[in-house]
Amino acid sequence: MERTTYIPQETARRLSLYLRMLRRLRQEKVRIVSSDQIRRFLSVSSVQFRKDLSYFGEFGKRGVGYDVELLTKEIEKILGTDVLHEITLVGVGRLGSALLEYPGFLEFNLKISEAFDSHKDKVGKICGGIRIKHIRQLRWVIKKRNLRIAILSVPVEFAQEVAQELVSYGIKAILNFAPVNLVLAADVFVSNADMASELESLVYKLKQKK
Amino acid sequence: MERTTYIPQETARRLSLYLRMLRRLRQEKVRIVSSDQIRRFLSVSSVQFRKDLSYFGEFGKRGVGYDVELLTKEIEKILGTDVLHEITLVGVGRLGSALLEYPGFLEFNLKISEAFDSHKDKVGKICGGIRIKHIRQLRWVIKKRNLRIAILSVPVEFAQEVAQELVSYGIKAILNFAPVNLVLAADVFVSNADMASELESLVYKLKQKK
Repeated sequence: MERTTYIPQETARRLSLYLRMLRRLRQEKVRIVSSDQIRRFLSVSSVQFRKDLSYFGEFGKRGVGYDVELLTKEIEKILGTDVLHEITLVGVGRLGSALLEYPGFLEFNLKISEAFDSHKDKVGKICGGIRIKHIRQLRWVIKKRNLRIAILSVPVEFAQEVAQELVSYGIKAILNFAPVNLVLAADVFVSNADMASELESLVYKLKQKK
Repeated sequence: MERTTYIPQETARRLSLYLRMLRRLRQEKVRIVSSDQIRRFLSVSSVQFRKDLSYFGEFGKRGVGYDVELLTKEIEKILGTDVLHEITLVGVGRLGSALLEYPGFLEFNLKISEAFDSHKDKVGKICGGIRIKHIRQLRWVIKKRNLRIAILSVPVEFAQEVAQELVSYGIKAILNFAPVNLVLAADVFVSNADMASELESLVYKLKQKK
């Protein structure tokens, strides 16, 4: 089978889901996982699972199952999370501090290593083990540490302006929590974590079902 | 043009985005919005915008633009957010309390009206104006208030169990913050707000670009 380099976004998202399941199995000392277990754990058909993996070559043996350790490492390599990625967080409000204190990112080899705010009551304080810096230092820190990924959790009215600033300092990917569509250069990846919209879309689905 | 009842999920998501822009324009006392402004605000082409609206009939006049007030009300009606929806939140940890204190939901006619936790240090406390109840009261409160939508922000190891409980009491839609794929009845809508996966997918995109 020919290997392709382009992988659909939905596949990448499912790979991330597989990885999570595999890591849990590994913690539980499970060595082999069957297609049937995968289907039950993830509500993903074994056909879909095999198709997703086929982008990268052949894994697993029919009738035997998949080696948990091997598959974990392969997917980590594919997703690029086999090495630690440092992330900067901008805006240490209620949500920002919850994210800073969230211990679950490290499991994914993701680490919030810098946090910024503009408010004098926050700058200098320690949150989630990180000393909050003033946003005036953004440029210097991003360049010095060569940071590429940012979490944006500033108030909505500042989001566009701060995002542009981040991009001008070298940030290439933003997880945006502000309820606004950021307009940035085409080579910057933006992922919107928009909770009100998620809820609104659930309301809409419930309405359609009636 | 014939009206269809099935609307793709991506369209529903964009409608939610349009609504957000329209509400902001309305606050700023803007009465008419042009296709060109929409394109600039939202990075959505005016063709896409017209196509999305065409699911519900005809809006706007070519060369004149769209009436902000009228379009806001129409989209709210379509999405079902023209009336207030009450939401229950389960799990008042760091993230849960950030969500409870988030003032932005009301703008979308969404209101977290009940919050539950099992920890004695939390039950009875007030957070975001809401007194936290013990999860033992879930059944009674959900049934009495006829709640349909829940935010699940409990620790990952309890997520599946609590979700099943919620569904058994009548919950039909869940916004899930736990990093796990919930396995529930097919008629329950689950939306996963999974921040580590979002970040992982950004890491992957950056890697692909190199």
